Amino acid sequence: MLLCDIGNTNIKIYNDGLVQIVSQEELLSYQDQRLFYLSVHPSLQSFPDCKKWINLEAFVSVKSSYNGLGVDRKALCSLVDEGTVIDAGSAITVDVMQDNIHTGGFIYPGKKAFFEAFRNISPRLDFSYQDILKNRLPQETRSALSYGFIAPLVALVEKLPKPWYVTGGDGGLLLQYLPDAIYRPHMIFEAMKQIIQRNGLC
Amino acid sequence: MLLCDIGNTNIKIYNDGLVQIVSQEELLSYQDQRLFYLSVHPSLQSFPDCKKWINLEAFVSVKSSYNGLGVDRKALCSLVDEGTVIDAGSAITVDVMQDNIHTGGFIYPGKKAFFEAFRNISPRLDFSYQDILKNRLPQETRSALSYGFIAPLVALVEKLPKPWYVTGGDGGLLLQYLPDAIYRPHMIFEAMKQIIQRNGLC
Repeated sequence: MLLCDIGNTNIKIYNDGLVQIVSQEELLSYQDQRLFYLSVHPSLQSFPDCKKWINLEAFVSVKSSYNGLGVDRKALCSLVDEGTVIDAGSAITVDVMQDNIHTGGFIYPGKKAFFEAFRNISPRLDFSYQDILKNRLPQETRSALSYGFIAPLVALVEKLPKPWYVTGGDGGLLLQYLPDAIYRPHMIFEAMKQIIQRNGLC
Repeated sequence: MLLCDIGNTNIKIYNDGLVQIVSQEELLSYQDQRLFYLSVHPSLQSFPDCKKWINLEAFVSVKSSYNGLGVDRKALCSLVDEGTVIDAGSAITVDVMQDNIHTGGFIYPGKKAFFEAFRNISPRLDFSYQDILKNRLPQETRSALSYGFIAPLVALVEKLPKPWYVTGGDGGLLLQYLPDAIYRPHMIFEAMKQIIQRNGLC
């Protein structure tokens, strides 16, 4: 069974426990195989030539009064009864579930966008991320920027209900600063499998 | 006495309690007057044709082991014995003073840069800031982005030593979410005045 997660930046294919990032062209090479997908990419929503592909969007269901909740966020939340889901991708989404209901969420720029923002403010802020010490205030610019990216987000997440589930490309990074969190790197694919099973699609 | 604060984005002139934002050309129209300035702009550091201008940079002094602390941050901190200084400009700088010593600080993107970062991630995240409710999780994208800008920063500042001093172009906005903070919109000019007095420059 092939699963595919089409994000804002990357297309990820899950095949029997292995995940690989593919280009749009590589994705289309799976045209004749059964493939289940979820997409948040505005221009990669439907694939008329791929008759065997199934967009899971219509099958994703979460109780929520949030207007415009992305299908990836919905799918992740559908796995969780209680707690907070942090998906650290191009954007970092943070969503809270209580009693099986999505009670709201917020969006933070991902690492790449965050450091691009610094660079756009001043050439003096043109640095890349480096790991920081959470409990020590920075003593130079590169740490000050890295701390400015990580520490505010962590301070807010720490106020949200546990368990904290962390996923996404920068999930591993975030986990260093949220040691109590549960790391589920393939959470989106776990969600897709559950949706496929529950709806008898396979 | 004319004071001038040359930032990454704006040039501000303080004249007898009034502040105005001026262009580089307008700034140079003060060429023949006594003017004290501080500049963090990489290409607006010295003005050889303006013989009466005094760059206060060399007179700003704060005990700190921070490598590369901007002269504006230094000047603001020189006014404070104890507490946290938040300067919400193109970048938002947060600096902590304890026992008259700068113990470190961090940098967060300013409002404009933050929302540009969202826009660069996806056209679906192309919104402008709107005021949020700090204690209610967002229920749609525009609030989710605005909350993502304000709430993490506020959550972290709330863990830093009081009093909190807020200044800068978006200081008023921030104050809404830090009601215990002290708003000092002209703090940089207060600092410049103190430096001038202490060094007998006027």
